[in-house]
Amino acid sequence: MSTIDTNLSSFIDMASDSDFSIHNLPYGIFSDTADGKRRAGVAIGEHVLDLALLETEGLLTLKGGRYFDQPTLNAFIDSGRDNWTLARSTIQTLLSADSDTLRDDQHLQKKALFKQADVTMHLPVHIPGYTDFYSSKEHATNVGTIFRDPNNALLPNWTELPVGYNGRASTVFVTGSTDIIRPSGQLKPNPDDRPIFAPCKRLDFELETAFIVGKPNKIGEPIPIGKAWDHIFGMVLFNDWSARDIQKWEYVPLGPFNAKTFASEISPWIVTMDALEPFKTELPTQDPEPLPYLREKKTDSSFDIYLSVSILPEGADTATLLSETNFKYMYWSMGQQLTHHTISGCEVEVGDLMGSGTISGPTPGSYGSMLEIAWNATKPVELKGGGTRTFIDDGDTVIMKGYSEKDGIRVGFGEVRGKVLPALDFDFDA
Amino acid sequence: MSTIDTNLSSFIDMASDSDFSIHNLPYGIFSDTADGKRRAGVAIGEHVLDLALLETEGLLTLKGGRYFDQPTLNAFIDSGRDNWTLARSTIQTLLSADSDTLRDDQHLQKKALFKQADVTMHLPVHIPGYTDFYSSKEHATNVGTIFRDPNNALLPNWTELPVGYNGRASTVFVTGSTDIIRPSGQLKPNPDDRPIFAPCKRLDFELETAFIVGKPNKIGEPIPIGKAWDHIFGMVLFNDWSARDIQKWEYVPLGPFNAKTFASEISPWIVTMDALEPFKTELPTQDPEPLPYLREKKTDSSFDIYLSVSILPEGADTATLLSETNFKYMYWSMGQQLTHHTISGCEVEVGDLMGSGTISGPTPGSYGSMLEIAWNATKPVELKGGGTRTFIDDGDTVIMKGYSEKDGIRVGFGEVRGKVLPALDFDFDA
Repeated sequence: MSTIDTNLSSFIDMASDSDFSIHNLPYGIFSDTADGKRRAGVAIGEHVLDLALLETEGLLTLKGGRYFDQPTLNAFIDSGRDNWTLARSTIQTLLSADSDTLRDDQHLQKKALFKQADVTMHLPVHIPGYTDFYSSKEHATNVGTIFRDPNNALLPNWTELPVGYNGRASTVFVTGSTDIIRPSGQLKPNPDDRPIFAPCKRLDFELETAFIVGKPNKIGEPIPIGKAWDHIFGMVLFNDWSARDIQKWEYVPLGPFNAKTFASEISPWIVTMDALEPFKTELPTQDPEPLPYLREKKTDSSFDIYLSVSILPEGADTATLLSETNFKYMYWSMGQQLTHHTISGCEVEVGDLMGSGTISGPTPGSYGSMLEIAWNATKPVELKGGGTRTFIDDGDTVIMKGYSEKDGIRVGFGEVRGKVLPALDFDFDA
Repeated sequence: MSTIDTNLSSFIDMASDSDFSIHNLPYGIFSDTADGKRRAGVAIGEHVLDLALLETEGLLTLKGGRYFDQPTLNAFIDSGRDNWTLARSTIQTLLSADSDTLRDDQHLQKKALFKQADVTMHLPVHIPGYTDFYSSKEHATNVGTIFRDPNNALLPNWTELPVGYNGRASTVFVTGSTDIIRPSGQLKPNPDDRPIFAPCKRLDFELETAFIVGKPNKIGEPIPIGKAWDHIFGMVLFNDWSARDIQKWEYVPLGPFNAKTFASEISPWIVTMDALEPFKTELPTQDPEPLPYLREKKTDSSFDIYLSVSILPEGADTATLLSETNFKYMYWSMGQQLTHHTISGCEVEVGDLMGSGTISGPTPGSYGSMLEIAWNATKPVELKGGGTRTFIDDGDTVIMKGYSEKDGIRVGFGEVRGKVLPALDFDFDA
């Protein structure tokens, strides 16, 4: 495990609990109001450092060309790990208190640094494919208990393979770029009647992280577990919005579809695996021991990442904390997920988004969805400003945050913040 | 229903049963050996007409610019229906026996026409998203009978909505561009033991068609049923290769994953809905009547398309016909599939591929998968050259064909032809 250089600091003023310390340096795509042009930046404190400008100024030179004056990070990521390492070290040096290049050049700072509050963030990568896993044992057990059979909550395949399914990449968006319109679909409020078409009544969030694939494989050629981590670039926070009532009626036998394809919301900054390296921790014990193709030689293949979700109703002064959990509870590692994904020969591509699945911890205060927090609407949550919730109402804003912290150093994800709008009044005859 | 102008013929020599008559004019992307550059073409008889060359020569001028000197058809399709109509009428005129422009210009013909046997076909569109439906009632009933309960073979949601799931777009390929490597994965040959990792033993095809989305919607805005058909550009043949033993173990509760993500094979030529218009036919009666959002005002929303699948073992002289069926058996229409896909607000994009699901007819001779044809390995199929099959062996080539025919006019899809190679010898320790 790498240690943290606690002497490293930036000349940029920032709060001591900023998610975007010099130890983080997450990548995103931004535009400022001046020209609306999208290019790559790195978050530092409350600022964004313009990487395209650094390339123009000759202060950031990578192998094989220029990568940051582009509307996505795919070309940079695809250029390989040597460039990831080179970019990180160059940017870290430029931002450090010990380096005068940027520190002492007010003119350059004015051109290269923007306040995050003044820029618009965009989807950081083009996402060719999106897959969602289901790798929290606590979440899968809770859902199985609620929907199926408390005595056999976990299905037999769950402990043998990281269960996952193909999601819909077209509706993954960056937080802030759109509100969430309450979906309509087929619901079956009365088991004895036919379904009805109506707005979803059980709108839910799923507190997740997701990783971004950084290196492709070829169709027909699985990624062995020993090489899986070489294919992962970084992580984001992820709210996989879900319509529980639509899901319940549609999902047998081919899995969730309309219940999940209306909105999947990611945070704008990709936190690299390099930045997360110091926060590695042990995976929970896997019992039974996985089949050989899923067996990792190391055990520190999880990460200590604090996660929280809050709700802010329309007009409320303060948000209500709904849950606090941690990525370290996940049963299957990201490496195991990726190897399993490709084991039958499936090709993954640079920019693919792989969701963790809802992250629930062992106690009720650490569950990652309203379905679990309010236990299938049997335990309403009291809100700070009054009122209760069993699922998400129109006007509610759901806020997810996440960070790793150690030795006073924080590496954070920022937040995902989505507001729910009422369902459309749909015109059948249009 | 449009009538067929049976007087229309091409000056290009072709067999009377050619799939690629002047009434068809399907679009594809090809390269010839000279420079390997990908561009758009139209199939005519045994030839390909180079559309990029026609643009250069000023013989094909569409609104808004040039579209065919590109490696995919997405820009052309995205340019809209007016251009689809204009391109079709211009190309049809150029190829007709009554028009002298191309007919009498040997020099132009030499530049513009290639033999299909001499060119390489590529994926005709970039496919942002791939969805597979499950819309054959006979297939769903057969699968439910084999795997679940003969007395409740069809699940309750099946007659209420076109069941579908997200597929994996990265492994959709054009027939001929790669062989199919037998996938490996988790199998559970003994219900009382743990699963094993091994090559799939129940490799299957799925005889399908798929449609290509021609017009996007916006996230949050469903496509109403009255406008669904405006969003469909054309159709291809589709073999959705499937590993039945992997599928059986993995698919509950989130649907098929590794069992389907290794190979999905399409035919190279997109047959347009304009070309298929004369072959419209009635949908089967839908009982119960669908909910209003799925209710079409017309009933002729299916198509009479003959489909067949054959198998050619390694070294065999002749293929064995396994099944003959027809697209007209499908219960849900493509318009209904598309509306349902977007009903919760899901965005579809130009180039999205929407599979029909396995197309089975009412009799054993018309089933669309080996699972059904050999009835879960209980009724082995006799091969012409000797031997039997219950699933697909290494070295087997599976051939699918499809066409519509009426008044002596044929509009065909060509074929999908995939050969199965042995499983990789996978190195766990790499």
